Amino acid sequence: MNSPAARTALDLTADLPVPALEDFYQDLHRHPELSMREHRTAAALADRFRAAGYDTVTGIGGTGVVGILRNGPGPTVLLRADMDALPVQEETGLPYASRTPGVMHACGHDLHVTWLAGAAQALSAGRDTWSGTLLVLGQPAEETGEGAAAMIEDHVYERFPPPDVLLAQHAAPGPTGLYAHRPGLIMSASTDVDIVVHGRGGHGSRPESTVDPVVTAAYLVTRLQTVVSREIAAREQAVLTVGRIEAGTRHNIIPSEARIALNLRTQSDEVRERMITAIRRIAAGECLAAGCPREPDITVGNSFPVTVNDPDTDRRIATVHGEVFGTGTILDPGPAMGSEDFPRLAEGGIPYSYWFVTSTPAEVWDAAPGDDLMEKFAAVPSNHSPRFAPDPRTLAPGVRTLVSGALACLTGPEGSA
Amino acid sequence: MNSPAARTALDLTADLPVPALEDFYQDLHRHPELSMREHRTAAALADRFRAAGYDTVTGIGGTGVVGILRNGPGPTVLLRADMDALPVQEETGLPYASRTPGVMHACGHDLHVTWLAGAAQALSAGRDTWSGTLLVLGQPAEETGEGAAAMIEDHVYERFPPPDVLLAQHAAPGPTGLYAHRPGLIMSASTDVDIVVHGRGGHGSRPESTVDPVVTAAYLVTRLQTVVSREIAAREQAVLTVGRIEAGTRHNIIPSEARIALNLRTQSDEVRERMITAIRRIAAGECLAAGCPREPDITVGNSFPVTVNDPDTDRRIATVHGEVFGTGTILDPGPAMGSEDFPRLAEGGIPYSYWFVTSTPAEVWDAAPGDDLMEKFAAVPSNHSPRFAPDPRTLAPGVRTLVSGALACLTGPEGSA
Amino acid sequence: MNSPAARTALDLTADLPVPALEDFYQDLHRHPELSMREHRTAAALADRFRAAGYDTVTGIGGTGVVGILRNGPGPTVLLRADMDALPVQEETGLPYASRTPGVMHACGHDLHVTWLAGAAQALSAGRDTWSGTLLVLGQPAEETGEGAAAMIEDHVYERFPPPDVLLAQHAAPGPTGLYAHRPGLIMSASTDVDIVVHGRGGHGSRPESTVDPVVTAAYLVTRLQTVVSREIAAREQAVLTVGRIEAGTRHNIIPSEARIALNLRTQSDEVRERMITAIRRIAAGECLAAGCPREPDITVGNSFPVTVNDPDTDRRIATVHGEVFGTGTILDPGPAMGSEDFPRLAEGGIPYSYWFVTSTPAEVWDAAPGDDLMEKFAAVPSNHSPRFAPDPRTLAPGVRTLVSGALACLTGPEGSA
Amino acid sequence: MNSPAARTALDLTADLPVPALEDFYQDLHRHPELSMREHRTAAALADRFRAAGYDTVTGIGGTGVVGILRNGPGPTVLLRADMDALPVQEETGLPYASRTPGVMHACGHDLHVTWLAGAAQALSAGRDTWSGTLLVLGQPAEETGEGAAAMIEDHVYERFPPPDVLLAQHAAPGPTGLYAHRPGLIMSASTDVDIVVHGRGGHGSRPESTVDPVVTAAYLVTRLQTVVSREIAAREQAVLTVGRIEAGTRHNIIPSEARIALNLRTQSDEVRERMITAIRRIAAGECLAAGCPREPDITVGNSFPVTVNDPDTDRRIATVHGEVFGTGTILDPGPAMGSEDFPRLAEGGIPYSYWFVTSTPAEVWDAAPGDDLMEKFAAVPSNHSPRFAPDPRTLAPGVRTLVSGALACLTGPEGSA
Repeated sequence: MNSPAARTALDLTADLPVPALEDFYQDLHRHPELSMREHRTAAALADRFRAAGYDTVTGIGGTGVVGILRNGPGPTVLLRADMDALPVQEETGLPYASRTPGVMHACGHDLHVTWLAGAAQALSAGRDTWSGTLLVLGQPAEETGEGAAAMIEDHVYERFPPPDVLLAQHAAPGPTGLYAHRPGLIMSASTDVDIVVHGRGGHGSRPESTVDPVVTAAYLVTRLQTVVSREIAAREQAVLTVGRIEAGTRHNIIPSEARIALNLRTQSDEVRERMITAIRRIAAGECLAAGCPREPDITVGNSFPVTVNDPDTDRRIATVHGEVFGTGTILDPGPAMGSEDFPRLAEGGIPYSYWFVTSTPAEVWDAAPGDDLMEKFAAVPSNHSPRFAPDPRTLAPGVRTLVSGALACLTGPEGSA
Repeated sequence: MNSPAARTALDLTADLPVPALEDFYQDLHRHPELSMREHRTAAALADRFRAAGYDTVTGIGGTGVVGILRNGPGPTVLLRADMDALPVQEETGLPYASRTPGVMHACGHDLHVTWLAGAAQALSAGRDTWSGTLLVLGQPAEETGEGAAAMIEDHVYERFPPPDVLLAQHAAPGPTGLYAHRPGLIMSASTDVDIVVHGRGGHGSRPESTVDPVVTAAYLVTRLQTVVSREIAAREQAVLTVGRIEAGTRHNIIPSEARIALNLRTQSDEVRERMITAIRRIAAGECLAAGCPREPDITVGNSFPVTVNDPDTDRRIATVHGEVFGTGTILDPGPAMGSEDFPRLAEGGIPYSYWFVTSTPAEVWDAAPGDDLMEKFAAVPSNHSPRFAPDPRTLAPGVRTLVSGALACLTGPEGSA
Repeated sequence: MNSPAARTALDLTADLPVPALEDFYQDLHRHPELSMREHRTAAALADRFRAAGYDTVTGIGGTGVVGILRNGPGPTVLLRADMDALPVQEETGLPYASRTPGVMHACGHDLHVTWLAGAAQALSAGRDTWSGTLLVLGQPAEETGEGAAAMIEDHVYERFPPPDVLLAQHAAPGPTGLYAHRPGLIMSASTDVDIVVHGRGGHGSRPESTVDPVVTAAYLVTRLQTVVSREIAAREQAVLTVGRIEAGTRHNIIPSEARIALNLRTQSDEVRERMITAIRRIAAGECLAAGCPREPDITVGNSFPVTVNDPDTDRRIATVHGEVFGTGTILDPGPAMGSEDFPRLAEGGIPYSYWFVTSTPAEVWDAAPGDDLMEKFAAVPSNHSPRFAPDPRTLAPGVRTLVSGALACLTGPEGSA
Repeated sequence: MNSPAARTALDLTADLPVPALEDFYQDLHRHPELSMREHRTAAALADRFRAAGYDTVTGIGGTGVVGILRNGPGPTVLLRADMDALPVQEETGLPYASRTPGVMHACGHDLHVTWLAGAAQALSAGRDTWSGTLLVLGQPAEETGEGAAAMIEDHVYERFPPPDVLLAQHAAPGPTGLYAHRPGLIMSASTDVDIVVHGRGGHGSRPESTVDPVVTAAYLVTRLQTVVSREIAAREQAVLTVGRIEAGTRHNIIPSEARIALNLRTQSDEVRERMITAIRRIAAGECLAAGCPREPDITVGNSFPVTVNDPDTDRRIATVHGEVFGTGTILDPGPAMGSEDFPRLAEGGIPYSYWFVTSTPAEVWDAAPGDDLMEKFAAVPSNHSPRFAPDPRTLAPGVRTLVSGALACLTGPEGSA
């Protein structure tokens, strides 16, 4: 008993140009671009928008691109894809692996871009089935948390009509064919912290004349493990990851300083503040223990907000996805520790829905060790892994999710929204 | 009651061109060159040798340079200076500070080169006071342990007559005016070890799906402290320094591997082997604890031999230095933990003497906190420190040490050697 | 609009002998007894049961005590209190503080016993208001996880009629006047693990001839922090606490072994197994790193099951508590990390309800730093703290919870159950 | 060409009652007594002194015992043995192993007592060969550093004539038949330090409401490794051993405090002070990192002085030992990290000689893995090991060392001293 939106979506995506989408996807995957340098990617996406009949503007908030299709009265719906890649050396062995050393689409943004291009085309082709205004948006620099804010600051909602609802989706590990929705908190806040430990350098053979920042940083990293293991209640969900440590140049020179870059994931401001306080205290204590000549520099940097779906909007989208893909395809993933800057596009409280599309190839999933979903989930390559390789067979489904989601928000022939 | 060698040395160095030596020194200090890239330095030194009348060959063992002065029958004496700088960002604030970002003469090799240039000139000018053959040698890449071996492999002792005795000196912290001799072990062996920890990368928000190499490397560095603190007897002199640690690129990406570069200082093969065994065991244990997908890679790399002065030779040089500089200027530093590749030039067991010239400016020394020599020694900038700034007033004395040392080994007018 | 059970409970507890209950409570608090040694406590409770007209048997499962009141047809309802104290040195400064050095009622079991004695008396006195069979049970050794199992093994349900429902309650931090119910998982599983690290002892001045188990145990404890911080997903609730570490006798003797006692809290078997596997792996790795002469002994010992309230039963009890204490007194605490052996009394799947009674004195609560409930919760003395001092003003309310809970399960005059 | 002292010593010890000495030794070994509780041991030794004709006083400085033999004009020579055992559980499997659980002669003091008893008897029997005054002294509580000071404070040198020279010897690992002398520093200073870490206790399932002192103490122990590995120059001999760590009672209770007992070995006051400063700094830093409610308590406790042999005295004793035992039996062990309170008996600067007698059974030594003396030395059970079992075949040699040493200091028939 499908809704008009679901039926229309199935119609509009019945004959998707899958080989062309695959070519587009593989080309994007071969040519990953780091945050705020997505020139080639943005140009390719803008071409698609224009070809599909959208008025398209590039260079918004750096390398951002927006297309608009005004199609009569009705709500303004924005579909968003992020475009940037990561400084990861690809290890997938795919024929279309990255050709840029040290840079890789290890988070699936190439898939997101392809999905959006496909949906923009399908919705334009079927514009007689709906009315309203469609905004399609390619966002730069999601990984660094800069892109959404940059587009807002570049007045995207003054240059285009402000949307009534935002939709976005993300590739995720899991057996293909599932769509994870959650009416409320779905992604965590993320905060970067940088620590510089100041020691006193010298010759490696005379540590007694130095204050060794390498050793100090190492003890600091081990001590930071207690923030989560001892200071945050088990019921509070929190992660502290030291993603980078760097000190010294030579085996036999004790350097003057060491640098640690860490990232926090939290679901409440109170826990975030508690963790930052603990980090400051631990860094101060470890540098005191080491006898550092001065206190460590601690910089609280980039941060991402919590992603909290509007319950009504998300339930509406989840319902149409359940109709499109069938019983048992919708699951509630619980609050995830991942983070997004997508909520920054919800300037002024625009309701939004953000969901996951599982994309681990069936062969990989079935071969993964483990008896249940969680064990297998932990065993397959996850986002940011150098072996992350989503299944291209999710290209058509990812277009359908966007098309049906958009239709559920726009005014349909039967006035569905 | 000075020996003829001491008297002659004082004569030959009575009117040293100190301002010119200072210009030469400051120019070298301004233009430091990393190991095996000492092109400018070697050319400048070769110019000096040639100007002083030496037949000079460059490009030996890479960027090495050798000058020869045949001056009648008698022994062949080799004077050696090392020429390379370090990847250290200078923080001295000197007017003649390094103009090459990230590279600095932080170990005094510029002083060594200047001393040798001055001595080569003085000995040539006074060639009627001695007979024998003088070899003056600018060695590349002491810091990396490559240079001496490279010159031997490049047949330096076939292209030039093999020397009967080798002399070398090094700038060291300490109040200026002291000459540290030791008839036996004066410098330790040095061994580089590289460790690569293999984890499993992934998203920083999902550590449970990864094996975190940053955390593993940090625990490993803390665990390595026990090699010296628990496994080596207090009477055995040994140092283990982790000079470099490096892992990851981004706050929120858990990388696939971490790299640690460490250096050992030892005074016996037995202790060296024991330390390497302990490092292998500890790295294996920590990677097992972490659940690493494979064993760590452990590479035993560059090494320097023990520097053991020939007792007779060293006592002879120490005696002449005592005569030249006066009572109370010679001290026994005990075995140092520093290392040299100079012994590699002693191919086949050529006797040698290697000594230190203290070079901390008096003002710096007097202002250093501490009540005794050892405390002050620990407080002043040591070799490899970004603030290492030896006193240019040691230029003339460092020429005198070489000239008197050489004369003590050559045949004098009175047949002193 | 109260139910008959609530009205009757308020009637039966209108004139509780509060001063006598306080005397009883203070006497119990002064005389704490460790697990399975609750001789004095059990005798005092049995006296109360007998005085209230219960047929009472002592010595069940060690020091357990059970009283029975057969009161016509209807369900059999069991009310349970645990009786044992802890090896903690009291620091409350209370006038009725423990007189037994090193032993303290630091978990409120003295309050539980008093509550049960009061409820047994009140329900007996009002036996004309209900029919059915009442079992009142004083359980030994909850803290060690032995007591409930020991009573079952001692055939308590053959010597007494098996109950249809079990009720139990626990004092908890929080401002007095709240009753925490949860229809489902309310307490976590608990597992004890013991690790013995085998080193090689010797003289403290010659660590090089030993394998130091003190240092090995210390690194092991720091490494174990990563089980929660890196290996368990943030959404999984888990705690690993090392409650005891012990090694050595003298400053200058390196001992042969070190002992670590740790406790896990988990909410699923999968996470529990994962943690035990990680502990084994980490202990093996650390002992390998140390060069231990043999593998560590790892013993998985005492465990407590998950406490999962029967939803229907718990909701019924929560409803009557809401009626007795008024609007806003019932809260859902979420799944707690604490553990209970109470579920072991639910032999064969008897439904049960287990709830918390907040008991932090208002003065203490108000003075606690923090802006919200969670911050204050973290700041006040918690169970097992040497300063844990529940408010005696909760004596009457804790009797009312049991009486109303029992009446909600028994057959009332109006046939309420 | 032996000296009169050597010849006389060989005469006097030609027919030692070895079986009786063995019985005495085995009895002592079976009945070890902890420091200041050596009642049985002191009584047995006093019996021997009296039987040999010495005026004997017990109870000096606690359980000390002194015998005197006035034998004409000449120097006063004191021979000293320490008497206490250690809190170690014996694991030797010897037929005469300790019958006192947890207490063991693991440092050979039973051998020292037997040697002294034998020498006292032999020198008394041969009193016609020497003149002077002989003091034989059984000292309590060497292990705790209390005994020598206690005897001095109890006026031993007012109750007996102050000696002109002191002699003492100690059993040590090494192949039997060697006598280790060193004219100068032979034993290091020893300093005990106690640290109490103050946390905040609580329930093991709620670490977030506590400050965990177990975890803090563990990180502290790992951090203390850097005192030796990073802060003390390799040429300075120093050891830091944490001999005891203790915290908590139960798996699931986070305790309020943790206690660490550590011992330092140093050879100069400067290094000792530097280490204590570093320990204070590190403990403060780690407790700050942990968020401890107050600073740690750090107590610098028991200490032993440096043992520095009088060069002339020691060379004289070494010479006579060389004559008695033959060429190749005397070695210089270098400065050892062990410590003694024996120098406290040298009140006012009395010259002394202190030496080692190697006592590892030949079978054990030969079977020990290792290619050289140092490797074997590290492999055999050392002092304080639960497997320390010196060879009873050293009983007669250890008597000879004392007898010949004493004779070398007394006035001989030929006026040898």
